Amino acid sequence: MPNLEAALKYAGEHREKFRDDLIELVRIPSVSTDPGRAAEMKQAAEWCAAQLRGLGFRNAAVLPTARHPVVYAEHLAAGPGKPTILFYDHYDVQPPEPLDEWETPPFEPTVRGENLYARGASDSKGQLVAHLKAVEALVKSGGGNLPVNLKYMLEGEEEIGSPSLPDFMARERERLKSDFCLNGDSGILGADRPGLCYALRGLAYFEIRLSGPARDLHSGLFGGAVHNPAEVLANLLAGMKDAQGRVTLPGFYEDVRELSAEERADLARVPQDEAWWLAGTGAPALWGEAGYTPTERATARPTLEVNGLLSGFTGTGSKTVLPSRAMAKLSMRLVADQDPAKVKVGLERYLKEHAPPSVRWELLTHAAARPSIVERDSREARAAGQALEAAWGRKPIFFRQGGTIPAVAQIEETLGLKSLLMGFGLPDDNLHAPNEKVHLPTFQRGVEAHVRFMSLCGKA
Amino acid sequence: MPNLEAALKYAGEHREKFRDDLIELVRIPSVSTDPGRAAEMKQAAEWCAAQLRGLGFRNAAVLPTARHPVVYAEHLAAGPGKPTILFYDHYDVQPPEPLDEWETPPFEPTVRGENLYARGASDSKGQLVAHLKAVEALVKSGGGNLPVNLKYMLEGEEEIGSPSLPDFMARERERLKSDFCLNGDSGILGADRPGLCYALRGLAYFEIRLSGPARDLHSGLFGGAVHNPAEVLANLLAGMKDAQGRVTLPGFYEDVRELSAEERADLARVPQDEAWWLAGTGAPALWGEAGYTPTERATARPTLEVNGLLSGFTGTGSKTVLPSRAMAKLSMRLVADQDPAKVKVGLERYLKEHAPPSVRWELLTHAAARPSIVERDSREARAAGQALEAAWGRKPIFFRQGGTIPAVAQIEETLGLKSLLMGFGLPDDNLHAPNEKVHLPTFQRGVEAHVRFMSLCGKA
Repeated sequence: MPNLEAALKYAGEHREKFRDDLIELVRIPSVSTDPGRAAEMKQAAEWCAAQLRGLGFRNAAVLPTARHPVVYAEHLAAGPGKPTILFYDHYDVQPPEPLDEWETPPFEPTVRGENLYARGASDSKGQLVAHLKAVEALVKSGGGNLPVNLKYMLEGEEEIGSPSLPDFMARERERLKSDFCLNGDSGILGADRPGLCYALRGLAYFEIRLSGPARDLHSGLFGGAVHNPAEVLANLLAGMKDAQGRVTLPGFYEDVRELSAEERADLARVPQDEAWWLAGTGAPALWGEAGYTPTERATARPTLEVNGLLSGFTGTGSKTVLPSRAMAKLSMRLVADQDPAKVKVGLERYLKEHAPPSVRWELLTHAAARPSIVERDSREARAAGQALEAAWGRKPIFFRQGGTIPAVAQIEETLGLKSLLMGFGLPDDNLHAPNEKVHLPTFQRGVEAHVRFMSLCGKA
Repeated sequence: MPNLEAALKYAGEHREKFRDDLIELVRIPSVSTDPGRAAEMKQAAEWCAAQLRGLGFRNAAVLPTARHPVVYAEHLAAGPGKPTILFYDHYDVQPPEPLDEWETPPFEPTVRGENLYARGASDSKGQLVAHLKAVEALVKSGGGNLPVNLKYMLEGEEEIGSPSLPDFMARERERLKSDFCLNGDSGILGADRPGLCYALRGLAYFEIRLSGPARDLHSGLFGGAVHNPAEVLANLLAGMKDAQGRVTLPGFYEDVRELSAEERADLARVPQDEAWWLAGTGAPALWGEAGYTPTERATARPTLEVNGLLSGFTGTGSKTVLPSRAMAKLSMRLVADQDPAKVKVGLERYLKEHAPPSVRWELLTHAAARPSIVERDSREARAAGQALEAAWGRKPIFFRQGGTIPAVAQIEETLGLKSLLMGFGLPDDNLHAPNEKVHLPTFQRGVEAHVRFMSLCGKA
């Protein structure tokens, strides 16, 4: 059985090797959206598979999907008495453009100060390699053993929305069976602020299309006689929220899990005060649902946003048109235990009740993802908290994230597994932007946290 | 002095010549918006000037403007005891596209049945030539005399918004002095429904630009914390009308001249019932200000229309963006005695009162034109009514038109002249569309009506 101290000692002694291994991987331009990078995608996948094979993983394979392959491997030597963890991360990266804004080329990894600069250094190769190196520390210092059973599933399509993952998981459901999923593709609140994200919001994304007159009309000749679809659209959208910023759609809050006093106390520790939100958004003032802090509103409360509006003439100058059509994209971020299908029913009911007979309407669904939440007092959440506290020497903040990670929703839906988000990206890592970097001391602490987490899981 | 009977006899005997003269003019492709048609524009202007010279007009000239010339000519032999009429019309036409929808080429005038097909046949060369031929009938049958003093002002930029006309009129204010303006660029309600348009709506056209966050935000990471400009825009627009379809902007109805019982009785005779409006618009139902008929709402009541909406993501599919900006084009059609400048003040006050501090707003003005109205019991309106009744053998309907003719507003503003709209286009003339045509019997009745109108004006 691996010994924690020995593993931590190995990790400490191999700090530079770990960094160099990460450099090897980020040097490969695995841009999933670029059809010209298929060979590099394959190369990055093979690099991961080779690493896993080298650590004694079985069945390590680069498995094809409709587009980019999934790397799968398993290390089940801990045996049936120990938990089985499915580690998820991705080896693809965002395109590096605009290239001229990079201080050093995106695929020529460069260390400056405490940071390593390269596309993918943080999102998510840095997080993937942090876990891989924790496994290495445990395996190498423990005679080839691991304290837990471990399955690896690394996808190559996260940056393009994980289109092939659901099919892959449905096909491989049997061998992916695990107790929970550990997702490395996430971050903490600051280099000295360990945190654990225990909830993500879900998404329900719609398009409302209104049509009135059969064609665009002359607003002088017809204005006043018929209902203007753009005006009706404004009325419908305006009616979806009240003056307190609460969504008025029927049943919208019915399944919302209210925040406990403990959760609110934790969220209050998240270092995001009003000034932080103002600086981060550039908005002239904050606004939102009455009775909640901005951080609560943006991470732990559901909301409804208009994502797009289009109607009539939108060019320079004027055209006196009474538009025949008007369109809005709108989406709701959902929190546990809201269901996007039920939200849609509420929206349809609202439209049936409020759209006047003077327009026709159509509702399209573009995306639906359930919210996800890990119980804060679950065994794995407690173990993660302890591991982070030990690695950082301070109590981690349990926080929520307002976005939706498609893979998390898909893994819960297809495999029935909750995801624990345990990655160590920092807010200033320039994700999806020029000069992406990983903070190397944080990367190393991440390795340590993973070592501790697996040890704790193996003990329980 | 010209004799009415002799002039009508001349007109009847020269019916085919009049048609052939119109064919000459519509054959010239005077498309004002097309920079490749400058020569043809000149040619059409010269044709008009030559005709006027041939009828004994003095100072007939093709006068340059910043773009297309204005044709001016005067016939002042009636002397100071008689009224002076400024006849306005335009010799430019709309582009003929889409060409493949024309049954015969747009600039090869073709007679089929009672109609002459060609671009400009109705709008407005047919109306211009109808007046010109009425002048010819009076001059040729009356020894070179006319019962009134007549000034001609024919512009070549009506179809592109009359941009040069205000400057031209300001420059030529002295020689354009007249008692009233007769505008040929209009129509009646049907071949057997003579009518006189005595009022046009004005226009106030704005663009509202809202901005919130400094850049587009991720709706998952920020949604809930800040105010969405698209949502604010929807709220602002929705608040501009009440449930009865009345505009709520401060002071909006303050200067609106209410319809008299006599006007309403006349408008009720306009052959536009609900079925007509439904068929003409293709809307699933009519809608508008409570308490008024569709015809009243579209011609004699002010309204507010959203002409365009743009915000955030409007492509196919979904993008989870919280837009940083939102834009609406909106315009009000105004009736006597509303003032676009005062309407703007009301809109600004509304925005100041209702735009929340969570967004910044900006208001642009794209167009402003006062409404115009001719008193129904003025001498010229009564004469026009009598002329139409005599030409058609039935009482004309006094009606209003919902659109705005920039030239009418400009002529009132620059020269201080009210415009009497006396043209004979028909609702099915396909203005601005393929297969534009003029109904030749109506064209000929128009000639007769103009002969009678000038005679009546000369007698008074």
